[in-house]
Amino acid sequence: MRVGANVQQGQTVFVNSQIEHAPLARAITRAAYSAGARYVDVHYRDQHVRKAMIELGPDEALTYEPDWVKTLAESSTGQAQIATTGDPEPDLLSDLDGERVGRARMKGITEIYRQQLVDRSVNWTIVASPNAGWAEKVFGEPDLERLWEAVAACTRLDEPDPVAAWRDHMQRLEARGAKLTELRLDALHYRGPGTDFRIGLLDNARWMSALFRTRDGVEYVPNMPTEEVFTTPDSRRAEGTIRSSRPLALNGEVIEGLRLTVSDGKIVEVDADRGAGIVRGQLENDERAPYFGEVALVDGTSRVGQTGITFFDTLFDENATCHIAYGFGIPEVFDGEPGEGMNVATVHTDFMVGGPELEVDGITTDGKVVPILREDAWQLPE
Amino acid sequence: MRVGANVQQGQTVFVNSQIEHAPLARAITRAAYSAGARYVDVHYRDQHVRKAMIELGPDEALTYEPDWVKTLAESSTGQAQIATTGDPEPDLLSDLDGERVGRARMKGITEIYRQQLVDRSVNWTIVASPNAGWAEKVFGEPDLERLWEAVAACTRLDEPDPVAAWRDHMQRLEARGAKLTELRLDALHYRGPGTDFRIGLLDNARWMSALFRTRDGVEYVPNMPTEEVFTTPDSRRAEGTIRSSRPLALNGEVIEGLRLTVSDGKIVEVDADRGAGIVRGQLENDERAPYFGEVALVDGTSRVGQTGITFFDTLFDENATCHIAYGFGIPEVFDGEPGEGMNVATVHTDFMVGGPELEVDGITTDGKVVPILREDAWQLPE
Repeated sequence: MRVGANVQQGQTVFVNSQIEHAPLARAITRAAYSAGARYVDVHYRDQHVRKAMIELGPDEALTYEPDWVKTLAESSTGQAQIATTGDPEPDLLSDLDGERVGRARMKGITEIYRQQLVDRSVNWTIVASPNAGWAEKVFGEPDLERLWEAVAACTRLDEPDPVAAWRDHMQRLEARGAKLTELRLDALHYRGPGTDFRIGLLDNARWMSALFRTRDGVEYVPNMPTEEVFTTPDSRRAEGTIRSSRPLALNGEVIEGLRLTVSDGKIVEVDADRGAGIVRGQLENDERAPYFGEVALVDGTSRVGQTGITFFDTLFDENATCHIAYGFGIPEVFDGEPGEGMNVATVHTDFMVGGPELEVDGITTDGKVVPILREDAWQLPE
Repeated sequence: MRVGANVQQGQTVFVNSQIEHAPLARAITRAAYSAGARYVDVHYRDQHVRKAMIELGPDEALTYEPDWVKTLAESSTGQAQIATTGDPEPDLLSDLDGERVGRARMKGITEIYRQQLVDRSVNWTIVASPNAGWAEKVFGEPDLERLWEAVAACTRLDEPDPVAAWRDHMQRLEARGAKLTELRLDALHYRGPGTDFRIGLLDNARWMSALFRTRDGVEYVPNMPTEEVFTTPDSRRAEGTIRSSRPLALNGEVIEGLRLTVSDGKIVEVDADRGAGIVRGQLENDERAPYFGEVALVDGTSRVGQTGITFFDTLFDENATCHIAYGFGIPEVFDGEPGEGMNVATVHTDFMVGGPELEVDGITTDGKVVPILREDAWQLPE
């Protein structure tokens, strides 16, 4: 309520949860009213309903966008949003046709939400809702208490004053972002097992932490946990090969050993030990999906990384280590209008490229190499 | 799919369920796609979210109607709807202010759905979703299997061919309704413990079973189970006292020993052993709420009545025995336009007045008395 969505007096709070997150959604609802919400509008989704649609529905169902979903999306403007994550059945869709899974999206609705990001008109956050199925995926047994402990550690709920701990943490990341911005890097160079990748940066894009501000000046933290500093890269300049270093949970399936080949800024080849079809399906969503929208740097001080746990949930796993996203760029990093370099697409998917074996260098406009990460340690002065 | 909503090829099917009904909602979704639905739109509601609103929300939240809910209601026209019932926590709201509980309604939205009833533009049904909480309320222990057996018996799922059994059953009730219509009764007279009640009937209103037809000719059965024949009474003529013979589950609370005093067609006094405030709150919703909209007759052959179980769910309990509703009338009983006698209101609440001690007579226009029910037995030739 105070750090994540930072709910303001009189706002409507939209809560988006899987039905298995009901205990947390209910707690959020009560807290939101106590924080002064004028109305709390909880929307539950059910992956089994989605599975039935993909498996048994007609082709037109996959891309159908009900009018009410559009009305709902539009009414978020100026309001607060809290989404919960933590998939109770991460492998649920794995026996379906990957191409149909990838195609099942509401592009028009995504566009409305994307525009709200560009306009910075919603204070929103994503938090985790531990549940038995997710715990089973993470630990091999439904140890819900252990998962709650891990989530609490990652989100600083184990601190005596979690709100104060979050304020300190965000200031540290803000300072790290400011330092990177000062360097005015022209590119990043990633080297590691299966990875030799260079991506251009934009001179009008800042590095920032996930301390966001709406156009009305409401500070919010859209991801809890967050450990990253990130920017929107130049979507026209990227080259090389990438091997993802952690499993990626996407659309109810887990993609393992993802390998991408990139040429002229574009992902031209997708391979994986498992689940490559899901990624290929996403990249076919629109012309700009196979271009990059985000580069994010995370070092070994990450609370998520320190747990040593693979959460099979992007919100956590992306904060354990460095990550890169294909799809739309993050407009918050630009002070004015994003220029041509920022990618605009209907997807945004983060995957992890990090860990102690990864070396990340910054390259300045005059070709100077600035080491940023070595053996998971931050190389710049803090 | 075939008897209740009778889903037609290419229809959107709206499913409205509490989150605890997810197993059934999922099964409905799969069956609906297999029956040719173009899209299945499942909406889950959560009574705990509603409770938080009533308990902690500002006054304006109680009657707030989000735009998307209006859009959703309007898009039901011409489509199919399936609602599930079976309250997992029927006493959940009982510690709240009854007046606030009664006030927490979306009147504009109710009006849209009411207009769809008048226009006969939606093929819809309500079915039960047994769950542990409901079983606990019914049996004093969460015996889910026993509740499923009772529900299966009431809904003829224990027949070798349930669809054929339903067709027979509905024809029997249709014949009973036709016979009552032929009598052209002017009024009904109820006599029993605490009840001495006379209510006028309308000469342009038929008695019918719950075999409904949309304006497009799609036959559907809106209640499963259904055991009643019913009509819309003359809301201008009702007089006497009524004592409800069974508990009434309403808005998450259970009302017991409901007693009504009626004068000039209007409920002028409400008393109860428990929960009277809920009914009083409803009757204050609008000027016409305290007038009557339905009289329904059920005899001892009712499968629901034969279980001997109080289900604490109106769909079942109203079909165990005779019932009466205050609030809006049922437009389906009129061949042309409903005349002035049909009540129009934003509520429709059935309560039970029946059982072996109740005697129901029909009164013809020339004052002749026609016995209809004695000791739970149907007195008219069948």
